[in-house]
Amino acid sequence: MTESLNVEQMAERLLDADNILVLCHKNPDGDTVGSGAALYHALRALDKTAAVLCSDPIPPTFGYTNIHLYDGSFQPEAVVATDVASLQLFGEKNNVPELARHVDFCIDHHSGNGGYADFTLLDATAAATAELVTRVIEAMHVSITPLMADCLYTGLATDTGCFKFSNTTAYTHLVAARLIEAGARIAELNTILFDTVPRERMLAERMALDNLEYHLNGQCALIYLTRDEIAESRVEPSDLEDLTGMPIRIAGVKVGVTLRQQPSGSYRISIRTVAGVDACAIARRLGGGGHNRAAGCELEGNLENTKSAVLAEVESELERLRGEN
Amino acid sequence: MTESLNVEQMAERLLDADNILVLCHKNPDGDTVGSGAALYHALRALDKTAAVLCSDPIPPTFGYTNIHLYDGSFQPEAVVATDVASLQLFGEKNNVPELARHVDFCIDHHSGNGGYADFTLLDATAAATAELVTRVIEAMHVSITPLMADCLYTGLATDTGCFKFSNTTAYTHLVAARLIEAGARIAELNTILFDTVPRERMLAERMALDNLEYHLNGQCALIYLTRDEIAESRVEPSDLEDLTGMPIRIAGVKVGVTLRQQPSGSYRISIRTVAGVDACAIARRLGGGGHNRAAGCELEGNLENTKSAVLAEVESELERLRGEN
Repeated sequence: MTESLNVEQMAERLLDADNILVLCHKNPDGDTVGSGAALYHALRALDKTAAVLCSDPIPPTFGYTNIHLYDGSFQPEAVVATDVASLQLFGEKNNVPELARHVDFCIDHHSGNGGYADFTLLDATAAATAELVTRVIEAMHVSITPLMADCLYTGLATDTGCFKFSNTTAYTHLVAARLIEAGARIAELNTILFDTVPRERMLAERMALDNLEYHLNGQCALIYLTRDEIAESRVEPSDLEDLTGMPIRIAGVKVGVTLRQQPSGSYRISIRTVAGVDACAIARRLGGGGHNRAAGCELEGNLENTKSAVLAEVESELERLRGEN
Repeated sequence: MTESLNVEQMAERLLDADNILVLCHKNPDGDTVGSGAALYHALRALDKTAAVLCSDPIPPTFGYTNIHLYDGSFQPEAVVATDVASLQLFGEKNNVPELARHVDFCIDHHSGNGGYADFTLLDATAAATAELVTRVIEAMHVSITPLMADCLYTGLATDTGCFKFSNTTAYTHLVAARLIEAGARIAELNTILFDTVPRERMLAERMALDNLEYHLNGQCALIYLTRDEIAESRVEPSDLEDLTGMPIRIAGVKVGVTLRQQPSGSYRISIRTVAGVDACAIARRLGGGGHNRAAGCELEGNLENTKSAVLAEVESELERLRGEN
């Protein structure tokens, strides 16, 4: 069982610690990297020994966070996880399983946090872990430097789609204001985070748009990319993640479907829906799962069979809704 | 000459007025509509007679602002312009020139405001006129309703690219926080404002991506749409405005060029640049103008000639820079 701490208690515990290892989750995103980097810089400002560890490489996009990766030069006495909801999310590489065997502290905003750390600061109303780390740094009476502000803003902006998503609260905006006052270079960061697209991704997007289809009277828009197309575009598969948001943006569309063929030949299917249409119900009937408005599954079979299978479930979900109204 | 007012003085003047006509600028955007609608609702909350007037129709996108358009049912005694930088921007339709002959008050954030009103509240550091109207409403001691908050958030979000652009300040975020607390439905609004694309626009985007070219060692990305393509896609020309931001998002690109053929056959050229490359210098040498990182011009000639003319100026600007470094 983990013991819950509030912001001030977490700050006190960290002030008492030294030789601190900060742990990010695998497949690191802006929030785990930004929160972890900011906490690292704050601990260093307090003259503590600290470093960051992640099972996967930190994406070059986040190079400006100036993170110092653990190189074995000190023996960790305290381990702090930032934005890591469960032990499995630590990953298996970089000696992480060994070093994360015992986690002292966890700062997180995922409601499903497994409570694996001795002490946890958890606030599921926070839009990003960076919101909580900002408060912990302030409670440690560390003055937020422009670099820390850049790191924390990164977490805030990436987890909220630049303040666009429904998890954004009034408090999120108040924290953003404090970070801008502390010197966050928001225009430069937002260009890097939201307005820089690799050429390969642009090509893949063109191919996906060439494959755009409307079904069910325009209520369903579907795009697909075959493994040959993905290979031809040379896009990194991770750069295709946000493509799944494209079909649902089209006016009149209630269900947006994205099919990406995997190297094995099977199709990974992403389902996005407008409010009131249950994406998870569609995915579950195809052996998958997810959230209310974003869900997914994976199907074996050729493109036509896969499309038919998905469209049949989309249709039955839309029909069920029509029956309700 | 106009007399400058601060927020409190503008609030006092408006409290003293009645039978108020609120004027938006032509080709209305989210800030002029949102600010105008919020001010209208606040004046109505004070039991004043008021209405909004615009030379062009209010886009259906902003239907939720529940704006009440002037129908001649009262004789305006005070005219207030929101977000209108100059007299010409009022437009010529809907009897606007007659009704806007004398403008009593102007609330605006454009540094180039012409000072055409008797009294002006101008703050060029405000990211949106909605920031200023929020403060005026608060200074009038009107409680911001959820509807007013929706209107004001619309102005704030649209003028800042959802808090992404460099005009966003700490204060912008503080105002956003107040509006969320007042009940702004940000998730719904952001879906409407940023994540809804007409089918026709999607088709035009596909055509533009099919026409994507890289020049000058990948430093320049260029897209174009011919008038035939635009006609075939049936896209509203106004829905193509933000297409001009697409080429510059590509990694490694320093100059993004968008060519849109006009019904007359000439090409409208939009130039976007990264920091340090002067878009306006390129456009000026082609007979156009604009800002440092966003400029434009219009050229007669066929597609190939037009492309060559633009690329020659892009190349000479990039070479000039290389000479400087």
